Amino acid sequence: MTQEELQNSLLEMGRAARAAGRRLALVPEAQKNRALNAMAEALAARQAEILAANAEDMAAAKAAGLSEAMLDRLLLTPQRVAAMADGLRALVALPDPVGKLDSATTRPNGLEIRRVRVPIGVIAILYESRPNVTVDAAGLCLKAGNATILRGGSESIRSNLALAAAMLDGLRSAGLPETAVQVVPWTERAAVTQLLKLDRYIDLVIPRGGEGLIRAVVENSRIPVIKHYKGVCHVYVDRAADPKMALAIIENAKCQRPGVCNAAEKVLLHREIAAVFAPELAAMFRRRKVEMRGDDAFCALVPDAKPATATDWDEEYLDLVITVAVVDSLGAAVAHIAEHSSGHSEAIVTEDAAAARAFTAQVDSAAVYVNASTRFTDGGEFGMGAEIGISTDRIHARGPMGLEELTTYKYVVQGSGQIRG
Amino acid sequence: MTQEELQNSLLEMGRAARAAGRRLALVPEAQKNRALNAMAEALAARQAEILAANAEDMAAAKAAGLSEAMLDRLLLTPQRVAAMADGLRALVALPDPVGKLDSATTRPNGLEIRRVRVPIGVIAILYESRPNVTVDAAGLCLKAGNATILRGGSESIRSNLALAAAMLDGLRSAGLPETAVQVVPWTERAAVTQLLKLDRYIDLVIPRGGEGLIRAVVENSRIPVIKHYKGVCHVYVDRAADPKMALAIIENAKCQRPGVCNAAEKVLLHREIAAVFAPELAAMFRRRKVEMRGDDAFCALVPDAKPATATDWDEEYLDLVITVAVVDSLGAAVAHIAEHSSGHSEAIVTEDAAAARAFTAQVDSAAVYVNASTRFTDGGEFGMGAEIGISTDRIHARGPMGLEELTTYKYVVQGSGQIRG
Repeated sequence: MTQEELQNSLLEMGRAARAAGRRLALVPEAQKNRALNAMAEALAARQAEILAANAEDMAAAKAAGLSEAMLDRLLLTPQRVAAMADGLRALVALPDPVGKLDSATTRPNGLEIRRVRVPIGVIAILYESRPNVTVDAAGLCLKAGNATILRGGSESIRSNLALAAAMLDGLRSAGLPETAVQVVPWTERAAVTQLLKLDRYIDLVIPRGGEGLIRAVVENSRIPVIKHYKGVCHVYVDRAADPKMALAIIENAKCQRPGVCNAAEKVLLHREIAAVFAPELAAMFRRRKVEMRGDDAFCALVPDAKPATATDWDEEYLDLVITVAVVDSLGAAVAHIAEHSSGHSEAIVTEDAAAARAFTAQVDSAAVYVNASTRFTDGGEFGMGAEIGISTDRIHARGPMGLEELTTYKYVVQGSGQIRG
Repeated sequence: MTQEELQNSLLEMGRAARAAGRRLALVPEAQKNRALNAMAEALAARQAEILAANAEDMAAAKAAGLSEAMLDRLLLTPQRVAAMADGLRALVALPDPVGKLDSATTRPNGLEIRRVRVPIGVIAILYESRPNVTVDAAGLCLKAGNATILRGGSESIRSNLALAAAMLDGLRSAGLPETAVQVVPWTERAAVTQLLKLDRYIDLVIPRGGEGLIRAVVENSRIPVIKHYKGVCHVYVDRAADPKMALAIIENAKCQRPGVCNAAEKVLLHREIAAVFAPELAAMFRRRKVEMRGDDAFCALVPDAKPATATDWDEEYLDLVITVAVVDSLGAAVAHIAEHSSGHSEAIVTEDAAAARAFTAQVDSAAVYVNASTRFTDGGEFGMGAEIGISTDRIHARGPMGLEELTTYKYVVQGSGQIRG
């Protein structure tokens, strides 16, 4: 395929997605739900094909020497396919965000201005390895009335195309446009670069993957991007903390699932409690096999902690590693967080209501917790039912992105002949 | 100045803006209002300097052969400086959007989740000629708690720096950080390209100007952009329209201020009323000296209308020119609008409630009107008090962008020791 053919094919895909998006915007909730249920059924009906396609992807990935972790992400099993189908069925129960009234006002001249939610339009999802994203993202976008263009990693292309074929069955049987969900079949890198230029047909790009992928998307995109980025999350133990609560929160935030973005990566201890609390904290970390790194003050209190390097403070380990600093005050904790946080989730543990107020006012992350684990930053835990990711951006959506965040709004203005004077 | 020096200077400007933004986010409304009033006073106090700087810009612009229209946009007069000061004072009366509660829920596990408005952070405004943008934009962003980096056209650099000096006086006297409002003093093009890479320090870019400026910004920016773009606005006259109302609305939408983005550029006439309505419409246009262009059907009814060319349907004239098409149905009008509209503002004139509902549901523009002029798409007319522009994008803000659209949100979560199971 020449560059020009690729460009034209992607343009055609964009046009088809725009046309599908326009139709989806007007489809009633019941029909979208029928499609989601039918897509779930089709995943079950086509399970053998999907697993066979995945087996080919796995064989190629092994031959290419992909890591065990990558292979595990790529692998589909009957259980994993069933979980995708369950995910689609779970969307049926969630309320349709389209048509929701944000606000209504009547102006002195009699104009009635209503702000109502409408789909964003066409959303491109760029992701790596995990084929479940193909189904999860397409389903969420569909429920919110959006068409999707999906571009996974080249290693999962056969799996993704097989999943797309099943979703197509579901769309067809519910009478929805077939181009409402499209998987880019071309695996060359240039396909992504070309896709990111289609600002006429694609309204939003959501990259999901490692830092390299996200940076490349941000640098090359003419289309708005919302990033689902790393989490360098902090737990600050205030001088007025309940030590038992602090210990439980840090253990949960660090150890319950260390490989996710809302896991804690850093702990800040107020100097006044550090001498008493640091040994308890260290005992817990040793028990949970967490590697400890620290600043001079922490290392002085916990001799088996390694001295932190300059890069430790900004690193997302996604592993059983923690870095601990001792700070002189709440203000110093806030300043440290402003310098090093990725703006995802931070927590204070304190019994002092004034300290809690100061922390939540001054720390500017997507989610700021008082006396709770950072692990709660999640669409399901926030009551959104499902999420397409967690935004660490500040524009459009911040924190967990659920169905409502996959919509925009328009103003509908009812007049009776008003003209402007 | 070498490229490297320029880069370092802009980096320093970005860092200073970030630091100022962090402080501004915590400043109480009264102090921001004091700053706005003091900035207004300083504009008056420094009026002579400002006019002198502007006179230098004007002389250079005349020597460079700028058009009369450009010179008029560049010109400052005592009245125009006073209008800027009045604009700042008007912001004092508007409610502070920061701290507003979007929603509050308590989860089954007892977590209290509040979503509260916070400033976006640092906003860069890129604009052309009009020096009043320097003050208007900085004032609006400041009221919403944001630091600004302003980059106007090179032709207005002396005026902009003089205005910035006055604003600095105001910031100082209210005890606000001096880097809360910064004008980029370097006029080379590379300054914009470098600025657009500072995604670590700048959260949002708002370009205001012609299509060339906006396209260049979208192509080069790593920072989210919200576009204040062209308006190709349509008025559709339904078969069930009140002809008198339709005439008044079209006259207002086209002629009241043809040079603005919410002015109508196209009229669509339902075939069933075209024969009767087209001559009345043409008579009004002749009286108002509006040049008429049309499709075959319209030209057949109005012999002095010129045949429209293919590009007419997508063009924003910003002048006393209109293009009229005859359509077979409401559906055809909707399809025409989907193809040619810039997504700004469209109107239907009809007495048929079902037609009105179909039009407002199916037309996906920022503002969709029933029986009212498109000219009402404006922050003031919508009750926002002031606007930084009108977004034709779909992400973050759509339509008029007021103070609330210059904020984002964060989640503040109050727990009592909750951990995730």
